[in-house]
Amino acid sequence: MGHGGGGTLSGELVQHVFAPAFGGEHLAALGDSALLDIGGARLAFSTDSFVVRPLFFPGGSIGDLAVNGTVNDLAMSGARPLYLSCGFILEEGVETATVARVAQALGAAARSAGVEVVTGDTKVVEAGHGDGLYINTAGIGVVPTGVDIRPQRAVPGDVVIVSGPVGVHGVAIMSVREGLEFGVEIQSDCASLGGLVQSMLGACQDLHVLRDPTRGGLAAALNEIAQASSVGVVVQERAVPVPPEVANACAILGLDPWYVANEGKLVAFVPRADADAVLAAMHAHPLGAQAAIVGECTDDHPGMVVARTGLGGTRVVDTPLGEQLPRIC
Amino acid sequence: MGHGGGGTLSGELVQHVFAPAFGGEHLAALGDSALLDIGGARLAFSTDSFVVRPLFFPGGSIGDLAVNGTVNDLAMSGARPLYLSCGFILEEGVETATVARVAQALGAAARSAGVEVVTGDTKVVEAGHGDGLYINTAGIGVVPTGVDIRPQRAVPGDVVIVSGPVGVHGVAIMSVREGLEFGVEIQSDCASLGGLVQSMLGACQDLHVLRDPTRGGLAAALNEIAQASSVGVVVQERAVPVPPEVANACAILGLDPWYVANEGKLVAFVPRADADAVLAAMHAHPLGAQAAIVGECTDDHPGMVVARTGLGGTRVVDTPLGEQLPRIC
Repeated sequence: MGHGGGGTLSGELVQHVFAPAFGGEHLAALGDSALLDIGGARLAFSTDSFVVRPLFFPGGSIGDLAVNGTVNDLAMSGARPLYLSCGFILEEGVETATVARVAQALGAAARSAGVEVVTGDTKVVEAGHGDGLYINTAGIGVVPTGVDIRPQRAVPGDVVIVSGPVGVHGVAIMSVREGLEFGVEIQSDCASLGGLVQSMLGACQDLHVLRDPTRGGLAAALNEIAQASSVGVVVQERAVPVPPEVANACAILGLDPWYVANEGKLVAFVPRADADAVLAAMHAHPLGAQAAIVGECTDDHPGMVVARTGLGGTRVVDTPLGEQLPRIC
Repeated sequence: MGHGGGGTLSGELVQHVFAPAFGGEHLAALGDSALLDIGGARLAFSTDSFVVRPLFFPGGSIGDLAVNGTVNDLAMSGARPLYLSCGFILEEGVETATVARVAQALGAAARSAGVEVVTGDTKVVEAGHGDGLYINTAGIGVVPTGVDIRPQRAVPGDVVIVSGPVGVHGVAIMSVREGLEFGVEIQSDCASLGGLVQSMLGACQDLHVLRDPTRGGLAAALNEIAQASSVGVVVQERAVPVPPEVANACAILGLDPWYVANEGKLVAFVPRADADAVLAAMHAHPLGAQAAIVGECTDDHPGMVVARTGLGGTRVVDTPLGEQLPRIC
């Protein structure tokens, strides 16, 4: 299960099994999307499969995730997402009403994100060889001229911004899956970040890195960027917004909210001179209202993420080995 | 299971569940690929999921299918296939060696087809919720200026060409799945048709329709085109090439080879004046060496496919309800 968690084990699978087999210059870049020049257009191209359990959860469904997961991967390269493909794998016996409800959620999420589902496929496997349904989406977006956002572009001095409170999606899933109640219902933050990114680009075209901290959470995203750019990252522990109900749930469950998946948040690495303008643009957008500066890049400890604790100490923030919660998206 | 078979039940699922939920002008065209204008480029975009059982079979594997299935869908719009995405859903416990062997087959098939795998994703589901592994690929290709190939373009008078013997892939899968032996080993015809299509376009840019007769076989492909174009199709039964070992196996198994899936064949609807030139171009290509004219379009019985039997009779060739062999690709 750990190989699907977006941490070290997933990385090893890509590095040792898939990358050598597939080869190619584009795959080696290892961003959330591939960047392609086709007929004069600069395109971003990305894919994700979705196996979340349960299919419906507070704040969303596998249909919403299937749109927003891929749209957000495209947006993390600065692209304007345009088109999606959609492949369903249905387990024999899943009710048509369930499939229809998922398809309607998917269609509504696509319209809300401003993308069009243009091509699709359906396969059916025997009962016992699936889990209701799985979805794959792939997406195409257009990257504006002059925009160059990728995990390799962080430099010492960059300011690290998160777009809002972390850990919400994972705790929302966990609470329904395990039948836990925490006094208040925690809703997934599942959302399309395409509009927020366009707002940020309006304030600063030279954003260095964007990443949506999904599987592996904030900790995995920061470590990936620190390693790809060979910079150190220092995070002020108290600056990272964690909703109290998420903090409480994580305390009970023995989870660290920095490692819990998000589906409607992003991390931005921004030149220091532009940080205030970018933050203001984020605050003006509904999905960035609680955006906060949480840290900075340094040339100390390249490839490593360090947290400054409230008491003035420091601790290393490791890459997770797997995922604390399997099948989170 | 029938809803995954590419026949009437699959069509109903698309028509009544997916199309109304997703909406959009591009999906309504219902070709093998969507055709998109992006930044001045004419792109084809398509997706397929692959759930074939077993993962390895004579003449190929799920990795070969995952490349060729999507590449062929792109080629059926006349596009030159360029880039693939690849999403793996792994079942907990599948051996890394199996995953690596599939990935290597997929990489080799991509190189052979002249496409690059540029982006990917891996998810893992618990043991008992998958069947080893499933793959989704999506592909992007470029459609040359002036090319307009789609299922709606067949007109009375068009000549119908198949690129070679039909029914081979399905029988190859069936023979290993059921442990049947027919004296000779029947190898899948799994292949990338991009090069063959480019050769055909060299002989005639105005190809009207191309279709790869996968799930549902030749019968489903001809019916889809007859219905999309509102033309009648008349097929000379004896002109359709069926290898003797496939005919024998089908006789034993109670299958009709016209309904059995192919993974390296195409059906072309070509203006009568260009038919000889297109056939000659096909014969000059290794994957079209056994191409044959099998019928023509008529304005009688629009939307219906009719076979002329060897004895001079006629019979209606129906759209299959589901698929004779589940999980064939």
